[in-house]
Parts: sequence; structure tokens; C-alpha cells
Amino acid sequence: MRIALLGYGTVGRGVDDIVRTRVPEIEVARILELPDRLTEARMTSNYADIVQDPSIELVVECMGGIEPAHDFICRALKAKKHVVTSNKAVVAAHFAEFAQLAEENGVSFLIEASVGGGIPWIASIHKARRIDEISSFSGIMNGTTNYIIESMRREELDFDVALGRAQELGYAERDPSADIFGIDVANKTIISACVAFDVDCVRNLPVTGIRTLTKNDLRVLASRGLTVKLFGRGVCKDGRYAVSVEPVAIPMASMEAAVPSNFNLVSLEGFTVGPLKFYGQGAGSLPTGNAIVQDVIDVAHGRFEKYDFSRGLIYDPTLLQGDYLIRSSVSVSAKAWAPGFWLVRNLTPPQARELLEKVWQDDESAFMAALPKEV
Amino acid sequence: MRIALLGYGTVGRGVDDIVRTRVPEIEVARILELPDRLTEARMTSNYADIVQDPSIELVVECMGGIEPAHDFICRALKAKKHVVTSNKAVVAAHFAEFAQLAEENGVSFLIEASVGGGIPWIASIHKARRIDEISSFSGIMNGTTNYIIESMRREELDFDVALGRAQELGYAERDPSADIFGIDVANKTIISACVAFDVDCVRNLPVTGIRTLTKNDLRVLASRGLTVKLFGRGVCKDGRYAVSVEPVAIPMASMEAAVPSNFNLVSLEGFTVGPLKFYGQGAGSLPTGNAIVQDVIDVAHGRFEKYDFSRGLIYDPTLLQGDYLIRSSVSVSAKAWAPGFWLVRNLTPPQARELLEKVWQDDESAFMAALPKEV
Repeated sequence: MRIALLGYGTVGRGVDDIVRTRVPEIEVARILELPDRLTEARMTSNYADIVQDPSIELVVECMGGIEPAHDFICRALKAKKHVVTSNKAVVAAHFAEFAQLAEENGVSFLIEASVGGGIPWIASIHKARRIDEISSFSGIMNGTTNYIIESMRREELDFDVALGRAQELGYAERDPSADIFGIDVANKTIISACVAFDVDCVRNLPVTGIRTLTKNDLRVLASRGLTVKLFGRGVCKDGRYAVSVEPVAIPMASMEAAVPSNFNLVSLEGFTVGPLKFYGQGAGSLPTGNAIVQDVIDVAHGRFEKYDFSRGLIYDPTLLQGDYLIRSSVSVSAKAWAPGFWLVRNLTPPQARELLEKVWQDDESAFMAALPKEV
Repeated sequence: MRIALLGYGTVGRGVDDIVRTRVPEIEVARILELPDRLTEARMTSNYADIVQDPSIELVVECMGGIEPAHDFICRALKAKKHVVTSNKAVVAAHFAEFAQLAEENGVSFLIEASVGGGIPWIASIHKARRIDEISSFSGIMNGTTNYIIESMRREELDFDVALGRAQELGYAERDPSADIFGIDVANKTIISACVAFDVDCVRNLPVTGIRTLTKNDLRVLASRGLTVKLFGRGVCKDGRYAVSVEPVAIPMASMEAAVPSNFNLVSLEGFTVGPLKFYGQGAGSLPTGNAIVQDVIDVAHGRFEKYDFSRGLIYDPTLLQGDYLIRSSVSVSAKAWAPGFWLVRNLTPPQARELLEKVWQDDESAFMAALPKEV
């Protein structure tokens, strides 16, 4: 099968590497690159050379960003080419449109690499759903913030030092906003909810990151047998669903607490299979390239996923109602939990986020984490 | 697709339940049962009614044991029926024969449910191998012993009390030998090695269980930041492979240490994808039934796995050479590690097992655990 790559950065090179050395039945025939970076015969800066080439059966989009990725994906699907992408931002923004175009044109639209890097997460959701309804999913979907939290906790580093180290190691971008403010996790949570629950998931979910976490927060939590991780979560029940992205306080003895360095751990709960957890590298050239190539091989073997968002699930944040911890130097009208920490009971994630924004008006260093009932 | 079940115990009922309520394209048309248990029209005690029925395309073997399961599987394959089984004992004993018969007759032989219950472990190995060589696998493959160890550690129970509780909860058989002496894990390790490494894995691997583990052992290990789990392990390198089943001392902060109750956690390492870990219920009617039904759906969708053991890998236990801890009231000529504990360096698993058997001659309560280098 002849395929084309849109983008030749970290991920695109990983795909090219893996295909060339390990998958003889696939050929990377064309590569879309910027006009000043055309270093070999396969490369072109003119998308028409790819989308109008009938010998190209599949397009791998790994350029990132919304436009022109969105436009290129639509044109590929309309040209009846399968599309495989690692671009979580564009999938989260336009999933329903891509899914519909793919179905209308009888081609596959696969997105494994957009969530969890090399972890077979999206394919596992699809597989579980052949038998089970998925009642919930949750987990650590961003390796950069896991690295920062673990460095702060294990080596007692300040946030900025840990972030700087993540940048040195290439785990964090020069502008780390998408990671530390939870935007990356929000995109992955939206995509996971779309696939797990068959819903065109809301985009305006509450999103809180870890920017204000301190090593002292981790110390106080540890003294209560807890730590914190940035979670994406989704729940589905009785025709309703909810999603959230926020720090969650979890028992130190849990598997999520043990996730080291920049790894991810994502969980789903199905009725007959029970809980399943999947762990691996959530980013990186070869792991993400691996996930893309797995999707490409699946397409070559005839795999076709239908996305159907017509179930009409209702967004209902009360499904994720629970208790929250707020750490702030200003007083919060709630129960004191530890010096400087307040326990606020029975908030939905949007209510919690609203409260945090109010607290931030007086104390912009305040930190908040959900405290699930079972803790 | 019309299928037949051989056996209607815990797993068979789970399969029947799941298929009836959740998978309309499959029909459990016949069930093989003992003559005195034929309670409904689908049941027969005569295997000829199944194997000679051309409308039955697939046979699910979930009777357990070696014979007649082995005979029935062979006859089904020769009758060009696909076979799906959860029976680790018969697969571990006769994998190469089944694989060859399946290929000769152009049918599928799928075994997901034989290792890790509801965890998509075997399918994930197959999928990883489309791109990567698997350089190693390891993990907690037996929920009963994990439950016993965790009860001993978290609640400070004696081994026999923890075992009794596992039996009350239905996690352990009345005769728990296969679990506590590591035989169950040995079968799963052999099967995993066959699939991961493409080798007709040796059967005479060293197998040590947890029968002599005490709560004091766990206390001493905990004081060093360690705990112990029963691991199946496999390594493959430069045309050689090794496998072992034994207790392994692991850091308390590791994910394996955090595995609760009767859950399993299995890991593989692939060149491009890196480490992947899979967690879930390793047993039980619905999780194991789920794994079987997933295989059945795969067959219905045309999935076919080829097993090729012709690579000629050489069994070489030095690949798993490492340090061992022995706890015994008699002196071992090795370095003292803690009161009553000795550290023996650079043994292969068979050498370690031989040493343990020597120690057992004077102290049958002695306990041994591998202590990997990274600890």
C-alpha cells in the first residue's frame, strides 16, 4: 500500500523509519513538507501532488495544529483516501465532521496515535465496545505533567525547576502551556469520550492544569497517604455523560501514583470485562510512529471503524460530582482539611472550577484537586 | 455464526451469557456436558453431535485439563472448525501440535482467555509483533497468589489464613497447588513465550511458587523498600531465549507492587513501542468469557493468527542470570542481607532452584526470590 505523510517532524520521521525498516507491505511514497525543506525526491510542498495521486491510498497527517490539517484531512477523505492522524487538536475540534466524511466516502479514519502515544488505547476502546458498554474511563494522558509531578515529588524540586528539566529532556515544548494548563489532556479526553461513549463530546468542559502545584502540596498530601495526578475522566450512565480535566488526589498505594517519569496510564471500565488499564509511552517519535503504523496496517488488513454520534447522550456534569481540596492562603468557606487546605464537598467539575477562579482573584497561587469518594 | 461450547462451568456459562445478551451475530448452538447434567436442548454428551455437525463453524473449549480436551481440540481442527480455548494447561502442553493442525486445516486457533483472563494480552503480543520484535515480557499472571500476597502484606495475615480467605472468595480452588506452586503461571509463561518469541517453548523451566512466603518476609522486604510478587518472565536476545517462574523482589514504589487483590499486570517490551503494560481481571466468569467472545468475534471478522516455531531459538537460562535472596534458618554460604536472609549473586533460574532444593533438605520453610539488578 502506498501512503503519504503530511509533516516530517518527530512523528513523521518515526513513521518513515518504522515503515522502511519493518513493514515491507507499506511504502511511504510522498511526504508533504515546507517549500524550503524539500530534501528528497518523495517530498513536495504542493498538497495536490498527494491528494490527486490515485496511487496514494492513505494519508498520514502528523503536522499538528488545526489549519491546514483540517482542510487537508477533509480533502483526503473526499478523495476517498483513508486517513490516519496523530493530531489530537484537530481531531478533538472536528471529530464529527471527519467521521461523517469518512463514512460518506467509504474510507477509514483512524486516530490511535492522537491519545496515549504507543499505547493501544483507542483500539482497545473499540474492541471493548464490541461486547461492553463503557461506563467510565480515566487516567494519566500527558507524560510531560506526569514527569513534572514525579520530579517534584521524588526529588523535591520546585515546579519551575521540574518544568525546565522536562524542557531540557524534550518532554515539554518551549511554550509548555498546552501541557501544564491541561489543554492537551482536554483534547485527549474529548477524543476518548467520543469513541468510548459514541457522542460528539462537548468542547467547553472544565479544564484545570497543574500550574500552581507546589512541592509543599505534595508533601502535605503524602502525609495523608495521597499524591496528585492530572487526570482526564469520563463517565456515562443512563443516557447521560460527563467529562473533566483536573488534578485528582489519589492514594499513594494506587497504580496511578506509581506511574513514573513521562509515562501514561489509562483505564476503562466495561460491564463484563471489568476494569482494564493500559500503560506505556504517551509520546515520542517511535512510540507515536508505532501507533500510526499499527493503524495503517489495520487499514491495509481491512479494519474499518464506524463512529456514530446519533445516540443523543446528554451532557450532565453532576455524574462527576464529588469533593474537592483547595489549597490557598486566603480562607475558603469550607472545612479545614490540613494547614492551608480546605475540603469543599459535593461540587460538579464546573462548579469546582468556578470556585477556583473566585479564589484565584485573591490568591493566584491557589491549587485545587478533586478528591474522589473512595479516597 | 453457530458455535459450540465444550464445558459449561464458570467460563462456559460466562460465554453463553455474553453471547446471548450482547453479540447477536453469534449463536451458542450446542453445549457438550456430562451425561447426568443435560438440562436443556442444546446440550449433548456425545462429542460426535458437535464435531460432525457441519453447521458448527467454531468450537470453544473451556473444560480444562489435558484429556479429553486435547483430543477434542484436535478433532475439531481436523474437522476444519475454528477453535477458541481458555485452557492454559492443554495449550501449554500441546501448542505446537494445535498450531500445525490449525494451519493444515486452514482454520483459526485463538487462545486469548488462556492467559490473563479479560486482559487483551495475547492479542496485544500478536499486534506488537506486526512491527516489533518482543525482547522481554514479565508480570503478575495469577490473581490467586497476588490476592494472598496482598492480604499477607496489607493485613499482616499468615499464609494459611490468606489462602483460606482466597478459597472462601472463590479465588482459589479447594486444591490450590496449581496456583501456589506456580504451575498455573508456568503454563501462562510457556504460552506467552510461544507467541512472543515464536518458539515451541521448553516445558522444563524452573518453577518456584510462594508456598513458603511468610508475613515476616514481607516485613523485612518492606523495611528495604521492597515487596515480592510471583512473576512469569521471558527474555529473547540474539537467537536465544529464557523463561522463569519464581517470586521476584520488586520496589514498593513500582506499578507491579501496587497491583491489588486478584488482579493481573503483564508487560512486554518492544523495540519501537517501548514498554507496554496491561492490567485487569485475570480470571472470573465474565472477564474470561469476554476474552473468549472477543476471539470468537475476531474469527467471525476473519482474523487468522499463524504460529511459526521454526525460528530455531536456543534455550539459554543465562539470559535471566541475576541475584537471589534466600531466607532460611540454616546458614547459606553467601552474603548476609538481613537477619535470616542471604544474598546469592549471579545465578541462572535453574541454578537458583537447585540451590533452593538443597536448602529445603535442611529447612523446608526456606523462601527464595529473584532480586533483579535494577532493585
